[in-house]
Amino acid sequence: MRIAFQGEPGAYSEAAAIRFTDHADLLPCESFDDVFTAVATGKATHGILPVENSIGGSIHRNYDLLLEHDLPIVGEVTLTITHNLMALPGTTLDQVTRIYSHPQALAQCERFLRAMPGVAVEATYDTAGSAKLVKEQHLTDAAAIASERAAQVFGLAILKAEVQDYSDNITRFLLISRGIDVSAEADKTSIVFSLPNEPAALFKALSVFALRDIDLTKIESRPIRGRPWEYMFYVDIPIGRHDVRCARALVHLAEFARSLRTLGSYPSWKSREAAATQQA
Amino acid sequence: MRIAFQGEPGAYSEAAAIRFTDHADLLPCESFDDVFTAVATGKATHGILPVENSIGGSIHRNYDLLLEHDLPIVGEVTLTITHNLMALPGTTLDQVTRIYSHPQALAQCERFLRAMPGVAVEATYDTAGSAKLVKEQHLTDAAAIASERAAQVFGLAILKAEVQDYSDNITRFLLISRGIDVSAEADKTSIVFSLPNEPAALFKALSVFALRDIDLTKIESRPIRGRPWEYMFYVDIPIGRHDVRCARALVHLAEFARSLRTLGSYPSWKSREAAATQQA
Repeated sequence: MRIAFQGEPGAYSEAAAIRFTDHADLLPCESFDDVFTAVATGKATHGILPVENSIGGSIHRNYDLLLEHDLPIVGEVTLTITHNLMALPGTTLDQVTRIYSHPQALAQCERFLRAMPGVAVEATYDTAGSAKLVKEQHLTDAAAIASERAAQVFGLAILKAEVQDYSDNITRFLLISRGIDVSAEADKTSIVFSLPNEPAALFKALSVFALRDIDLTKIESRPIRGRPWEYMFYVDIPIGRHDVRCARALVHLAEFARSLRTLGSYPSWKSREAAATQQA
Repeated sequence: MRIAFQGEPGAYSEAAAIRFTDHADLLPCESFDDVFTAVATGKATHGILPVENSIGGSIHRNYDLLLEHDLPIVGEVTLTITHNLMALPGTTLDQVTRIYSHPQALAQCERFLRAMPGVAVEATYDTAGSAKLVKEQHLTDAAAIASERAAQVFGLAILKAEVQDYSDNITRFLLISRGIDVSAEADKTSIVFSLPNEPAALFKALSVFALRDIDLTKIESRPIRGRPWEYMFYVDIPIGRHDVRCARALVHLAEFARSLRTLGSYPSWKSREAAATQQA
């Protein structure tokens, strides 16, 4: 098993891959697109992608990429995010004039950053990459916001730990693969559909789940390119595709959806964690 | 009328304010928070905020701020976005080694940027601010992606016009104010609600509109801070709050929503444009 992830070593995606399994090689990639390409071309057996954060919301780019590619979701994992302010050893907090991080991370530390007047905040493409930048360019007046592991990897000192505004900061990651077999343990299914632009279309769509007492664990709308103000709906339901209720609901939905696709059916992280606890 | 907007002169928000009315002073603000503060403290009578793009999706930060503040939505306007690559006069396309812009704008020009290998792409907080940066720091090897107006304001030359990947690129802006009067012309209402975490909760919520043949022009979910995987739902409906169907639907929704708030009831841009055409 070889898992491709976006970012430098020390990225949160790398930590999520390790949490999912400690029996895999890890392949750092520059962009989310590169993660999909690595899996599609066989450079990696799996890819790991952040799709949703409990504070910031969805990482839309990855939903778009899931739709563009034909690589099924085969698993999920959640990770608690702890942001740290780090700098070169010797740099003190008052010497910091610039802070680098990914825009999502900066947004999650907004209150902390507001309390540092006169400090410039610069957006980068990667949390761990910000730590690397401070290290490689030997920036003695700058700091990065990234994971504790990024500090270790790049030899930076933590100036202040846990600088995020909210402690309940959790990111959900999906694992993609080339395989098409649905695991017998699958107890969660992700689908995407579009609807005719008419009154009560979404109400009808949700009825296929409500009529069968199927809960929605997530619903998300994304604009359809080229058709302003029309949407694709991404829905997660807490049953596997092998479940007859799931099959019936999807057949029912297909009657009036303009398009419908199953992105994957897989063991939920909750059930994986429970199984791991039982084995231990 | 004095409209606060986020960004430098030449920002798309400024263009949207001018499209809404050419009879207003304009007040540039550093952040979206500052726009809200300007309206709350009376430095401006109105604020204008981008909330949704037909390609990139919602600007979540502004939905969060609408909820944090008590400033009603009083209008909306849509604007077609045309991105341009601009640099100091004399700089040629092959001299460009770095391109600056807002992450949303960069995402909307992704295919164009991928076709420029070896060029570094840097995220900033503002499209027009990127143009200002190139000008003020006299960067002869850099370019910015911003509006045509930003090129004029900062004396830059357009190296390549319309560099966005998709032509159907429209942003929707909301106007906020301190007033609480709902205009008699209001034909659109924005609400936000949360639901108990139980099966079919969203289905029931949408039934209050479906039973009254009220269409949804938008639905968006946002995580609730501190309650992972619970959501606030933002919904737009194409009728005014004075309409008895709207009043009844909201009373019905309040029966089982955990929280419910009307963010504003206002004339839709479609109806404003139609009225302007009739007068002309």
